[in-house]
Amino acid sequence: MQSKSFLVAVSLFASLLAAPDAFSREGSPPAGGWAAALREIPEPPRIRESNRLLSAEPHHLGSPYDEHNARWILDQFHGYGLEASIETFYVLFPTPRERILEMQEPVRFRAALAEPPVAGDPTSAQTSQQLPTYNAYSIDGDVTAPLVYVNYGVPADYEKLASLGVDVAGKIVIARYGGSWRGIKPKVAAEHGALGCIIYSDPRDDGFFQGDVYPKGAMRPDQGVQRGSVADMPTYSGDPLTPDVGATREPSRFDLKDARTLTKIPVLPISYGDARPLLAALGGPLAPTEWRGALPLTYHVGPGPAKVRLKLAFDWKIVPARDVIARIPGSVWPDEWILHGNHYDAWVNGSSDPISGLSPLLEEARALGELVRKGWRPKRTILLCAWDGEEEGLFGSTEWVETHAEELRRKAVVYINSDSNGRGFFFAGGSHTLEPFVTDVGSAVVDPEKKIPVAQRLRFKRIQDAKTADERREIRDRKDLRIEALGSGSDFTPFLQHLGIASLNLGYGGEDDGGVYHSIYDDFAWFTRFSDTDFVYGKALSQTIGTALIGLADADVLPFDPVPLSDTVAGYVKEVRDLAKERRDAAEELDRQIADGVPQAVADPRLPFVAPKKEEPAPYFDFSPLENASAALARAAKEYTAALAAAGPALASDRARVERVNAALRGIEPALTLEEGLPGRPWYKHYIYAPGFYTGYSVKTLPAVREAIEQKQWPTVNSEIAATAKVLSKAAEKVIEATNALRAP
Amino acid sequence: MQSKSFLVAVSLFASLLAAPDAFSREGSPPAGGWAAALREIPEPPRIRESNRLLSAEPHHLGSPYDEHNARWILDQFHGYGLEASIETFYVLFPTPRERILEMQEPVRFRAALAEPPVAGDPTSAQTSQQLPTYNAYSIDGDVTAPLVYVNYGVPADYEKLASLGVDVAGKIVIARYGGSWRGIKPKVAAEHGALGCIIYSDPRDDGFFQGDVYPKGAMRPDQGVQRGSVADMPTYSGDPLTPDVGATREPSRFDLKDARTLTKIPVLPISYGDARPLLAALGGPLAPTEWRGALPLTYHVGPGPAKVRLKLAFDWKIVPARDVIARIPGSVWPDEWILHGNHYDAWVNGSSDPISGLSPLLEEARALGELVRKGWRPKRTILLCAWDGEEEGLFGSTEWVETHAEELRRKAVVYINSDSNGRGFFFAGGSHTLEPFVTDVGSAVVDPEKKIPVAQRLRFKRIQDAKTADERREIRDRKDLRIEALGSGSDFTPFLQHLGIASLNLGYGGEDDGGVYHSIYDDFAWFTRFSDTDFVYGKALSQTIGTALIGLADADVLPFDPVPLSDTVAGYVKEVRDLAKERRDAAEELDRQIADGVPQAVADPRLPFVAPKKEEPAPYFDFSPLENASAALARAAKEYTAALAAAGPALASDRARVERVNAALRGIEPALTLEEGLPGRPWYKHYIYAPGFYTGYSVKTLPAVREAIEQKQWPTVNSEIAATAKVLSKAAEKVIEATNALRAP
Repeated sequence: MQSKSFLVAVSLFASLLAAPDAFSREGSPPAGGWAAALREIPEPPRIRESNRLLSAEPHHLGSPYDEHNARWILDQFHGYGLEASIETFYVLFPTPRERILEMQEPVRFRAALAEPPVAGDPTSAQTSQQLPTYNAYSIDGDVTAPLVYVNYGVPADYEKLASLGVDVAGKIVIARYGGSWRGIKPKVAAEHGALGCIIYSDPRDDGFFQGDVYPKGAMRPDQGVQRGSVADMPTYSGDPLTPDVGATREPSRFDLKDARTLTKIPVLPISYGDARPLLAALGGPLAPTEWRGALPLTYHVGPGPAKVRLKLAFDWKIVPARDVIARIPGSVWPDEWILHGNHYDAWVNGSSDPISGLSPLLEEARALGELVRKGWRPKRTILLCAWDGEEEGLFGSTEWVETHAEELRRKAVVYINSDSNGRGFFFAGGSHTLEPFVTDVGSAVVDPEKKIPVAQRLRFKRIQDAKTADERREIRDRKDLRIEALGSGSDFTPFLQHLGIASLNLGYGGEDDGGVYHSIYDDFAWFTRFSDTDFVYGKALSQTIGTALIGLADADVLPFDPVPLSDTVAGYVKEVRDLAKERRDAAEELDRQIADGVPQAVADPRLPFVAPKKEEPAPYFDFSPLENASAALARAAKEYTAALAAAGPALASDRARVERVNAALRGIEPALTLEEGLPGRPWYKHYIYAPGFYTGYSVKTLPAVREAIEQKQWPTVNSEIAATAKVLSKAAEKVIEATNALRAP
Repeated sequence: MQSKSFLVAVSLFASLLAAPDAFSREGSPPAGGWAAALREIPEPPRIRESNRLLSAEPHHLGSPYDEHNARWILDQFHGYGLEASIETFYVLFPTPRERILEMQEPVRFRAALAEPPVAGDPTSAQTSQQLPTYNAYSIDGDVTAPLVYVNYGVPADYEKLASLGVDVAGKIVIARYGGSWRGIKPKVAAEHGALGCIIYSDPRDDGFFQGDVYPKGAMRPDQGVQRGSVADMPTYSGDPLTPDVGATREPSRFDLKDARTLTKIPVLPISYGDARPLLAALGGPLAPTEWRGALPLTYHVGPGPAKVRLKLAFDWKIVPARDVIARIPGSVWPDEWILHGNHYDAWVNGSSDPISGLSPLLEEARALGELVRKGWRPKRTILLCAWDGEEEGLFGSTEWVETHAEELRRKAVVYINSDSNGRGFFFAGGSHTLEPFVTDVGSAVVDPEKKIPVAQRLRFKRIQDAKTADERREIRDRKDLRIEALGSGSDFTPFLQHLGIASLNLGYGGEDDGGVYHSIYDDFAWFTRFSDTDFVYGKALSQTIGTALIGLADADVLPFDPVPLSDTVAGYVKEVRDLAKERRDAAEELDRQIADGVPQAVADPRLPFVAPKKEEPAPYFDFSPLENASAALARAAKEYTAALAAAGPALASDRARVERVNAALRGIEPALTLEEGLPGRPWYKHYIYAPGFYTGYSVKTLPAVREAIEQKQWPTVNSEIAATAKVLSKAAEKVIEATNALRAP
């Protein structure tokens, strides 16, 4: 369900990618190494064909074609000569029984809630197999109330509404998609006392404003709807009924009140065609300029006179989620696992989301199988995972991770995720220890359209997009490409943020804009007209992750570099310190303006005026533990770099020393977690990266500290600083351990 | 025709406003002084009634009701006991004979080109007296060509089009209003080879996006059109046939080729209702995000497939323009003039533009007349001017200034302009020597709704709007409110920029948003529902300018303060130096990116790619003459301040010394001009303030230098720096002269 907002990305370790064989393994690598050999194998027509087959019918979780696809994927893995099996979980999955949205005042209107088939797009007409347009994990409900427009429905929007004198308590809110993960919208609405929540795609963000609409162009048409889960993923991902444990057995009965991640109020997504009459019927204050979308009307916030009824009833049932797992056993370190996963379930046909990522995974499996046939034996075990039920809330990956948590803690070295893939620029997010490695991988893969390394094209784009000469200088001078920190929205979350396994999320995009996300139009007809039409970026993805897998599986010393981690974390530490100062300064300034009578004097007397409240003075915090721990990590990282250089090429043949070094390096990412988890959401254990509690997709780095400041929980800030300092100290210890292991004879 | 974009503004001289009588004059001032007495006189109902009468019928230049208004204004002046007379000029004024705009391909459409009357708004139905919707001083023409959308139609937009591979040569362009004065659009279009120009009001800037449309709300409705002149005002204002000289005689014949400010191509304004089918019929590249407006369509730039015909024919004739000038003779220095002017002609009924400013001028005249009856005799002569033909290009003021140039150079001390007035915040622009004076005036007038001085309310607004703590600190700590530099768009231009007479432009606004500018809906019905509905800001304007007139007329030492001038100019010098560096750095960066192959590597291969051209290296310039002259002015200003303080109260009774000081002070503003005028436009003689050659309304400060850099005329930059340094040196000499006069016994 990965949303298009990554556009991110990535040579210390370049040698690793074509490393000569240091330890015994069968076969001899071809000239250029196994990774170079792999990159010759993937074929776009094969990727195209598997995309066509997998997206030929709607295949959501629990549907017949979803099961068909699981078995077909298993067959492919077997056909490539890989061990593979299906692992089944039993998860909660509601589908709609009844959906009514109607306006009763000031004019009557009933929303269509349906996406029409499009001529020339055969699968768009598979109406009987398509899931209706809905948000899964909304509760049942039947509410009638005046409507309020809440912009994106994030906390700041409700502050703005309060300043306009508008309260949503007892109202139904209508929010536009964007600005947060969708599940945030009903969560925040319910916190403010709303009775129901409607989410629509505004054409400003996702419709004709962005380009010609489907089928003329790639953008979302008038009646297109974004389906999607609204379960409270920032609390925990996976089956709502089974946090922390794998849903390995079908329950004989279940109680919905145990599902803590369901919404508190009913919520329904609609098209902009359906939203238009509702928004046109709003009165009250004019919406702030930046709230106004592209519908041809004057945006007001209400409440009313529009009064709407929202009635939703779901069929709450348990369905099987089938993960398909293939395995290439390691020849030297079989109990060290390198994983790549991509989900295969879709909301409807999902040619883009997720099949554009899954088909390259299959092509990569074929390529790896071929290398094995040619004699390659990876030193470490490789696992390829086709996840089910990702769209519902990362179900397949989360349940699998929870089921195998103990084994994964011991064995998993790196998890690589992919999801939707498109045309354009390489993007990469993940653990910052892997920044040089990712840069190397991106330097080994050639952009299919521009014929230059994808890392170089990305660097050029960043140079072109940079706002200042300083930014450009850093991009030009820094050896490695910076990679993004990961929030959530795809299957890396249970690996990285629940277990603390070093993770990456890789793909291509940015030249594949479209408006079919989670609609019936995300299908083969659309994809082959507007996205990676000849599947050359699908091939690039196979090459990219195949290269990464071989690099990681065959590396002697694992390519975890503590320097970019310490460098990046130092930046985050500065950010949270600056954030605290900004918040304090802003509160002081506001208080001064209130004392001087500024707001009252400036306000337009013809508009409603709500006097701003004096803020509680924000205290000064003790950031020194974090600063000391960050500095200690930086020192340790520097020492490690020196020690690694000093160890020289002899190291590779000293297996015992390599294993001691690797054991320490593998300890860095888990060291960044605390068993007690983040405040209020113990399932999330990573103290550097988490999805924002009020953003969802978007990451909050140093989340315990940052969110305590953002949410003005002043009494907890110092203790969260101390907790976060602790994980940095633990990580520094692991780096020192690695350095000592390097130096030991 | 002043557009809503001033929102600007302003106690060293506070004493002046209630100054005791230093020299002989008749009558004794009331407690609080004459200015305080004046502020008690204006009555909103009188302002309302004169607005109603003056806007009762369409009254454009040359129309019967325009003449009626001139005579009625004259009668009012006489009624208030003032000397007054009408001075008539004979000017070129085309009105439409034929207007056709039709789309021939890919679908046929004929633009309505008409504003429908609105129920409940009686004057909107005076169809037979209304001017059709058109742009005056467009040439005649009949052109048919494919259409290209050019955003605001400013030079940067054509650079963007070129980067998209789109050329407008041989095409008709459609530009939206905004981003420049309207006359810039056909000028730049013609420079790029376009055959015709259509200008429309996009609802994003001026329509439903901004608020409910008329008559439900104040904003521009679907068929509302902005009329207006497109004569090339940045070359010279006034009658196109008579630059530099007053059009005092009706020519027996004239040749249009002498009218150098006519457009080069036909141009027509249209409504967004008429624009919608045209824009919807454009193909070609998607318009850049920031070019897209609020019409419910996907904005493309073309060219075509839309093909349009634009046919325009005008009745070119000479009409009388009647200025009504009232006079209160000075008792001490009758040959020193303080002027206030506001135009009275409108495009249609013009209740807002210009009557909302003219009615307060009449009320101010009544108040001054009453003070005279009570015994007040201003030391200096006061002139109140009701200008005709402003909408055509500042005709009334320009022809009057050109006719009386020699006398004005000797006698005019300060010209104060007003134009449209509305509800909200005090705004002030003009000569920076008057900054402390303006702050004093704004401190003496009470906001009618907030009951605090209008200067304080403005300061509070600036504090609230400030982006940084540094900005807020300056606003709080600086004694005076900064005032804006003046560009053009109203009648101050001939005084300030042609003759070098110190000028101010004053008014209220910012809480009076609307979309009726230059349409039939700018009328009494609209104004009394949406703008200064009870005319209390009209009263505030009478009080403000009345206070300023008395302060200036009765001041012993004129309140010209060289410190804010030198302070502001130093800022401009830094700006142009920074601009040169930015341009040089940007050119170097672009060249580096071109050399590295960045643009080619980053460009989307499915979009047209136009390789950027290498820039000619921008040289380093010698800014030192400007920096030295600016520093000399600052030193002189500081000395003057010290000398003024040292002179003490005794100065006021030393008439000879005061006159020597004043003579020098009055020389400062003319010193800022050069007789040869600005490069390429000799009519504009002011070297600190000018309307931008490619912006129109908006000011370019240090225009000779700034525009040479912006337009990459590298060989002329050093000489323009020297020319501009020269005016600063001349001004510094005048300040030194004033200081010496202060110190002389």
